[in-house]
Amino acid sequence: MREVGIGVAGLGTVGGGVLSILERHQPEIEARLGARIVVRKVVLRNPEKSRAVEVEKGIVTTRMQDLLDDPDVAVVVELIGGTGEAFDLVKGALERGKHVVTANKALLAARGEELFRLAAEKGVDVYYEGAVCGGVPIIRTLREALASDRITSLHGIVNGTTNYILSAMAEEGKPLSKALAEAQRLGFAEADPTLDVSGGDAAQKLCVLAQLAFGARLGQKDVLTEGIMGLEPEDFVWGREFGYALKLLAVARRCQVEAALDRAVDESSPAGGLVESGLPGGSGWPYPPDTIEARVHPTFIPAGSLLAGVRGAFNAVLLRSEALGPSLLFGQGAGAMPTGSAVVSDIIDLSRNILSRSPGRVPLPPAQARVGLRPHAEIRCGYYLRFTVKDVPGVLARIATTLAARSISIAAVQQREQNEEGGAVPLVIVSHRAREADVQAAIAEVDRYDTTMARTRLIRIESP
Amino acid sequence: MREVGIGVAGLGTVGGGVLSILERHQPEIEARLGARIVVRKVVLRNPEKSRAVEVEKGIVTTRMQDLLDDPDVAVVVELIGGTGEAFDLVKGALERGKHVVTANKALLAARGEELFRLAAEKGVDVYYEGAVCGGVPIIRTLREALASDRITSLHGIVNGTTNYILSAMAEEGKPLSKALAEAQRLGFAEADPTLDVSGGDAAQKLCVLAQLAFGARLGQKDVLTEGIMGLEPEDFVWGREFGYALKLLAVARRCQVEAALDRAVDESSPAGGLVESGLPGGSGWPYPPDTIEARVHPTFIPAGSLLAGVRGAFNAVLLRSEALGPSLLFGQGAGAMPTGSAVVSDIIDLSRNILSRSPGRVPLPPAQARVGLRPHAEIRCGYYLRFTVKDVPGVLARIATTLAARSISIAAVQQREQNEEGGAVPLVIVSHRAREADVQAAIAEVDRYDTTMARTRLIRIESP
Repeated sequence: MREVGIGVAGLGTVGGGVLSILERHQPEIEARLGARIVVRKVVLRNPEKSRAVEVEKGIVTTRMQDLLDDPDVAVVVELIGGTGEAFDLVKGALERGKHVVTANKALLAARGEELFRLAAEKGVDVYYEGAVCGGVPIIRTLREALASDRITSLHGIVNGTTNYILSAMAEEGKPLSKALAEAQRLGFAEADPTLDVSGGDAAQKLCVLAQLAFGARLGQKDVLTEGIMGLEPEDFVWGREFGYALKLLAVARRCQVEAALDRAVDESSPAGGLVESGLPGGSGWPYPPDTIEARVHPTFIPAGSLLAGVRGAFNAVLLRSEALGPSLLFGQGAGAMPTGSAVVSDIIDLSRNILSRSPGRVPLPPAQARVGLRPHAEIRCGYYLRFTVKDVPGVLARIATTLAARSISIAAVQQREQNEEGGAVPLVIVSHRAREADVQAAIAEVDRYDTTMARTRLIRIESP
Repeated sequence: MREVGIGVAGLGTVGGGVLSILERHQPEIEARLGARIVVRKVVLRNPEKSRAVEVEKGIVTTRMQDLLDDPDVAVVVELIGGTGEAFDLVKGALERGKHVVTANKALLAARGEELFRLAAEKGVDVYYEGAVCGGVPIIRTLREALASDRITSLHGIVNGTTNYILSAMAEEGKPLSKALAEAQRLGFAEADPTLDVSGGDAAQKLCVLAQLAFGARLGQKDVLTEGIMGLEPEDFVWGREFGYALKLLAVARRCQVEAALDRAVDESSPAGGLVESGLPGGSGWPYPPDTIEARVHPTFIPAGSLLAGVRGAFNAVLLRSEALGPSLLFGQGAGAMPTGSAVVSDIIDLSRNILSRSPGRVPLPPAQARVGLRPHAEIRCGYYLRFTVKDVPGVLARIATTLAARSISIAAVQQREQNEEGGAVPLVIVSHRAREADVQAAIAEVDRYDTTMARTRLIRIESP
């Protein structure tokens, strides 16, 4: 039987999953591939550390260089993370004509283009299904299944940690600090959860996805990013009254679909726009110069929609494309086995290219120079504004006037009764689609009123 | 620029979509493929008929033979349907070393194995993403993304027509005849809807999916198939009370997961077992000889689950696999553009194989001789039984005794009050997991009671 030699750098959670899947599913993989995948080298920082998977002593090394120098390693599997050593390893592998599988979204978001260019020069492949939404074959779908189509928008729940926390807050009414502590205790959040709760992890993933979907060169700073730390149980309660669920959503879309979206947002009923509405699919709007918007923020979405049903540590990506219309992929976001499985699928795919001598069969995503980025100030969506005001006559009228002056049209207002007269009372306004800069300016103005008792809370609304 | 010549047989709904996508997305496709796809021949039964897409006169023919004889046609796209002429065309193409793309599930379900064997012999490819769930890349996912994994179960809403009808019945309380008539008026159901409403179409698709997921050789007759024609609005109302949605589900699964499912069914709360429960993923149960069960029938599923949220003419497939856990794909079920898009993605994929000289890169699904089929009598699931009984004392006790004698354990009972004494009254029993043969025998017995006023209605329950 023919063999494909691989080398694995890093044996953390995902690396352990990869080795265990390669071992346990060996018969299936050999039957499907007609060849054997052989692990020739494993690079470990600390070979003495005890691990869940056993590795044969003879193939373990602590030096990256050993991996690069081994002529029997055709595929380098980079699972060390970060953008320093990992970059050097991937670059070194590509330079030596080795193929690469990586699950490192940070590396791809920061330096992907450089690595893709090098791979194309050298006629080798870089596969990275494990980098975004481990258990969801989104990379493959964007690269291959939708090759015949033109994607218009992408809405994703791409961070399992925050989705776990928001689900707990929604379902059990927990405050954020408790939900986060529970997620940490159960292993769904890391000891330092900053990258997840800040939205940074989701923004990196969005960069990787936007390149495939739109050919857009985005850095993390190009993504309007807002984390979940400011969310309060109260916002979940209000949202429910308006028929919304609250999710940390990664959104990227071509701005030309605006006209169609105007309609969709106005129909944002609890029944869920997703299934019934549908953008005007193949009905052929012209191809104007491409501009996209890219953002990650807590988002109210219709409670009955499919994305609202994605609970716990799961991930999902909803795509809209011209021919296909809406489509959605759902699965586990991370973990040894889901992400390990994505990595092994990549190894198998690469092995097929090697065995059939067809590297570069699916070209890496081209960066289209002509894709523009809409400035954050120009973003448009619906807005939920929770004002905290003194309960005196005329406050609503004054706020409404301020909003109207900035062309922000009100869809609904709700105000809670309060106990003591003249005290602080929440006043919630849901707007129709408005311009980000206008909304921010209006809030700044309202926040300066002497009747405003606390900073106004803003949550964006989407009908994906 | 290099060229790949294709020939298209049949220019109905899907064929029209294919040509229109090839034309409208030509720049994107050429950029991604680095080659041009050229339609060399189009076979039409009636070239004079007016069509939505224009075809250059010079390439039109009425003879299949012209397609087969054209040396510049490397890929034959079969879109004529049926299992007669379509079989001859596909076989002829494979014999001449041409690759094939087909969207013909009936052909694959009936004679797929023979064609796959021939393709393997000739070293050419058969791609068929369009054959099952047009807008859902399920074939590609099973063939490639899950190549590293072992699938344990598959639950699909794979027929858009019946899902449209059931959604209308559930949401608007319509009787089936009205919902069907409306679906026909809107183009979601054909004038003769038999293949759809009988479950036959879904069963054919399940055969195609089960071969990929489990290597099982199934014919349509191997699938326990029950259509939707007997469903009444009343069953939707009862289902809702128990926390269920009603869907026509295609189910295939390895029988070894029984033990794990026992638990899942008992937890079948309205909150939805899908997201939180999860079978014991990578926890390594042994690999016993494979037996699968395969069935298509109206099914109660938890109202809060993701599949329950799939409404209208949409399709979705939920997979459970050892490493990945649960994953779901959702999209449009059929139509010119979604299915056309799937066919064009196949053409692009095949073109990549042709250009990189790697045909057979992903082998066709092997039929594993050792996959057994569980007899329909041995199927196990939960059951909803709606008895219509005379409202006299002792009826419930008698039915409960009959069920107990066959080891059918009752999870819940509900009985409606009625107006006139001694008249017919519905009595609904929901069982825990039971054996199909036992349930059928118990129903037959109850249906012979003099207190039974109408045939008992049975609907199976799953917690996918």
